[in-house]
Amino acid sequence: MKAFTYYNPTRIEFGKGKEKNIGQFIAEYGITKVLIVYGSERIRKSGLFDTVADSLTDNKISYEALGGVQSNPVLSKVYEGVALAKSSGAEAVLAVGGGSVLDSSKAIAAGATYDGDVWDFFTYKAVPNKALKIFDIITLAATGSEMNNFAVVTKEETKEKFNLAGAATFPTVSVINPELQATVTNEYLVYSAADIFAHSLDMYLSATYLPEHMAGYVENILKTVIRTTEILLKDASNYEARAEFAWAATQALNFTTFCGVENNRYDTHFIEHTLSAEYNIAHGAGLSIVMPAWMKWQKNNLPERFVQFAKNMFNVDGADAGIEALKQWYQKIGAPVTLKEGNIPEEDIPVLVEKLSVVAKMWGAEGLYTKEMITTVLENAK
Amino acid sequence: MKAFTYYNPTRIEFGKGKEKNIGQFIAEYGITKVLIVYGSERIRKSGLFDTVADSLTDNKISYEALGGVQSNPVLSKVYEGVALAKSSGAEAVLAVGGGSVLDSSKAIAAGATYDGDVWDFFTYKAVPNKALKIFDIITLAATGSEMNNFAVVTKEETKEKFNLAGAATFPTVSVINPELQATVTNEYLVYSAADIFAHSLDMYLSATYLPEHMAGYVENILKTVIRTTEILLKDASNYEARAEFAWAATQALNFTTFCGVENNRYDTHFIEHTLSAEYNIAHGAGLSIVMPAWMKWQKNNLPERFVQFAKNMFNVDGADAGIEALKQWYQKIGAPVTLKEGNIPEEDIPVLVEKLSVVAKMWGAEGLYTKEMITTVLENAK
Repeated sequence: MKAFTYYNPTRIEFGKGKEKNIGQFIAEYGITKVLIVYGSERIRKSGLFDTVADSLTDNKISYEALGGVQSNPVLSKVYEGVALAKSSGAEAVLAVGGGSVLDSSKAIAAGATYDGDVWDFFTYKAVPNKALKIFDIITLAATGSEMNNFAVVTKEETKEKFNLAGAATFPTVSVINPELQATVTNEYLVYSAADIFAHSLDMYLSATYLPEHMAGYVENILKTVIRTTEILLKDASNYEARAEFAWAATQALNFTTFCGVENNRYDTHFIEHTLSAEYNIAHGAGLSIVMPAWMKWQKNNLPERFVQFAKNMFNVDGADAGIEALKQWYQKIGAPVTLKEGNIPEEDIPVLVEKLSVVAKMWGAEGLYTKEMITTVLENAK
Repeated sequence: MKAFTYYNPTRIEFGKGKEKNIGQFIAEYGITKVLIVYGSERIRKSGLFDTVADSLTDNKISYEALGGVQSNPVLSKVYEGVALAKSSGAEAVLAVGGGSVLDSSKAIAAGATYDGDVWDFFTYKAVPNKALKIFDIITLAATGSEMNNFAVVTKEETKEKFNLAGAATFPTVSVINPELQATVTNEYLVYSAADIFAHSLDMYLSATYLPEHMAGYVENILKTVIRTTEILLKDASNYEARAEFAWAATQALNFTTFCGVENNRYDTHFIEHTLSAEYNIAHGAGLSIVMPAWMKWQKNNLPERFVQFAKNMFNVDGADAGIEALKQWYQKIGAPVTLKEGNIPEEDIPVLVEKLSVVAKMWGAEGLYTKEMITTVLENAK
C-alpha cells in the first residue's frame, strides 16, 4: 500500500423512508433556514417535495426553493442559487435530486460564502474550504456525489465542464433511500451503471500500483453492479438489488477505492466531460462509449492488470478478451459503445482533440493527454 | 440492504514515516498541549518517543507523558490518566501504542471532560459525547480502535471487561505506519489475525441478513488476513503484506462491515472479554479458542451462511468442513483452539458461565446469552 490520507466526514442515512426525517437531521446541526435545490417539477408531483417541506416545518426550519437544475448542470443556475442563498440568508443547502442537483448545490453552498466568482473554484483560482452546510436526498445512484466533495458544473458559453473540491464541500448528511431511486428509466439505470463502472475501473486500470486487497475491494463493487443491473433491468421493483446498487455507487467514489493505490487517473472522465458538455449526452452514455476505446489504448501500459481484470471479472484470458467482454456487457444492457451510437459525429474528432488539449493544458496534464493519445482513444470509439 | 446510519469522521494518515508529522496533524486543530499515553518503555528505546516529542515541540505543542499501559488495559491506569489530563490542562490525548493504549486514551479523553466517574461510560450510566480530542500512532494492527469510537477497559477488582462508545471517542487523526507494526512477535501477529478474523466473522456468521455485496466485502478482508498472515510469518519484513494486513484490520471494525446487515452480534467477543479479564490471556488468543467453538453452536442458526462461508473462504462443502478448515488454519499459524491450549482450566467452566451470565444480564442480553448457550460454547472449546 502506498501512503495515503483518508478523510470522509459525511454521515449516511440509508434506508426506506429516511427522507421523512430530513428536518430532524438538519436541525441536529442547529440550522433554521435552508435553500432547497431540485431539478424537474416531478418531485412536486410525486409528493417528495411536500414530504421534505413538512419535515422541515416540523423541525422549525424555514426554506426557499430553487428548481430547474438540469443534467450536465450549468453555471448560470449556480449563480442563481448563490444569489438566492445570499439574499434569503440560508444557513444550508438541501439538494433533492440526482448528482446534477447535488453538484449544483455544492457549488451554491461554496459560492454563498465567497465574495468572488464561484467559477474561481472550478478553475482552481480558489479552494472551497468554507461553505454553507450541505444536505441531500439523493434520488439517483450514479455519481457518488453523496459521499465525496466533488462537484462538476458546465459553463455554458465556453462549454467548459470542470470540477471543484474542497474541505467544505462534503455533504454533512446524505439520505439514500433506494425506493426513491426506483423511478429511474432503464436507459438511465444503464448510464448509471456505466458511471459507477468508470469510477471504479478508471482507478483499477490506471493505478501503477494496486494492492491485491484493493483489487478485491473494487472487483466486489464491479460484480455487484453487474449482478444488480441485470436484476433491475428485469425487475425494477427489486428493492434489495436497488439497495446494493446504490451502496456500490457510493463506495465507488467515496475515496475508499483510492486507499493505498498509486497514480490512479480518471482518463475516461477527462475525455467524457468534454463530450457531454459539447453534445449534451448523458454522462454515463459518454462513459460507456469512451471506456472500451480508452482500454484499447491503455492496455499496453499495464498489461498484467488487464489480464487480471479479464480473469477476475469475466473469467476470460487476456487483455483483449476482457475488453471485449466488457463491451459486450455494455451492449447487452443497452449502453452505447461507439460515437455513432451516442450521436457524436465522427468527423468532429479533430475539433474534440483541440478542445480536450486546451483542458489538458489547463490541468497541467498535456504530457499525459497528448493530442496523439486523445486522437487514438476517440478513433477507437468509431 | 437494511436501513443504517454510517458516520466515521476519523482522518487516517497511512504510510511510512507519517508519525514524523504528528505535531503538524495535531497543530492543525489548534491544540497546544497534549497528554501522551503509551505502554512499555520500548518506545523510548526505539526512538519513537523522541520522534513524537520532537514533532510536537517543532509545532509548539507542549506535553506530559503517561507510560505503563498494559494489555487488557485497566481502569486504575485510566483514572491516573484522567487526573493527569485534568491537572496538566491537556487539550488532547495522543496514544502511541497498540489497541490497549488507544482504548485507555479514549477513556482518559472522555473522563477528562466529565465530572463523574469515568467507569459510568462503561456501565452505560453516561455516554461520552464530549471528550478531549484523540490522536494516535497505532503500533499494532488488530483492534481497529484507530477508526472507531470503541474502548475496552477492565476494572481490576471485579474483573469486568466492558466497553464505551460515544460521538466524541472517534480519533480525530490516526497515524498508521505499517513499518512501526513490524516489530510485533509472530505470536502476537497470529493473535492479531484472530482478532481481525473475529471482528469480521462474528458479523458475517451472525447477521440474520447479509447482502451479497457485503458478504463479498467481508470475504475480501478475511482473504487478505489469511494471505498476508502467511507471508508475514515467513517474512516479517514484507512491507506490502504488513500494510495490507494493517488496512484490513482497520476496515474490519470501522463500521463499514455493518452497512445494511441485520442483527449482527459479537458473540465471541462477548465470551472472550471475560476469559481475558479472568486469565489475562491475549484477547486474540481467547478469540481463536472461542471462534470454532462458537461456530459449532451457531451453525444451526444460519446453516446456509455457514455453507457460503465454507465455499467462499476455503472452497470446501458444508458447514462442518468450513469450521474445520478455519480451525486447521488457526492451528497452522499457531493460534490456540482449545481452553487447554490457552491455559484455561476446563473445570472453571461452571464459574465462567456464572460470570458471563451476570454480564449478559447487565447488557439485557440474557435471552440470547443463556447459561445453556454459554455452557455449550465453552464445552465445545474443550
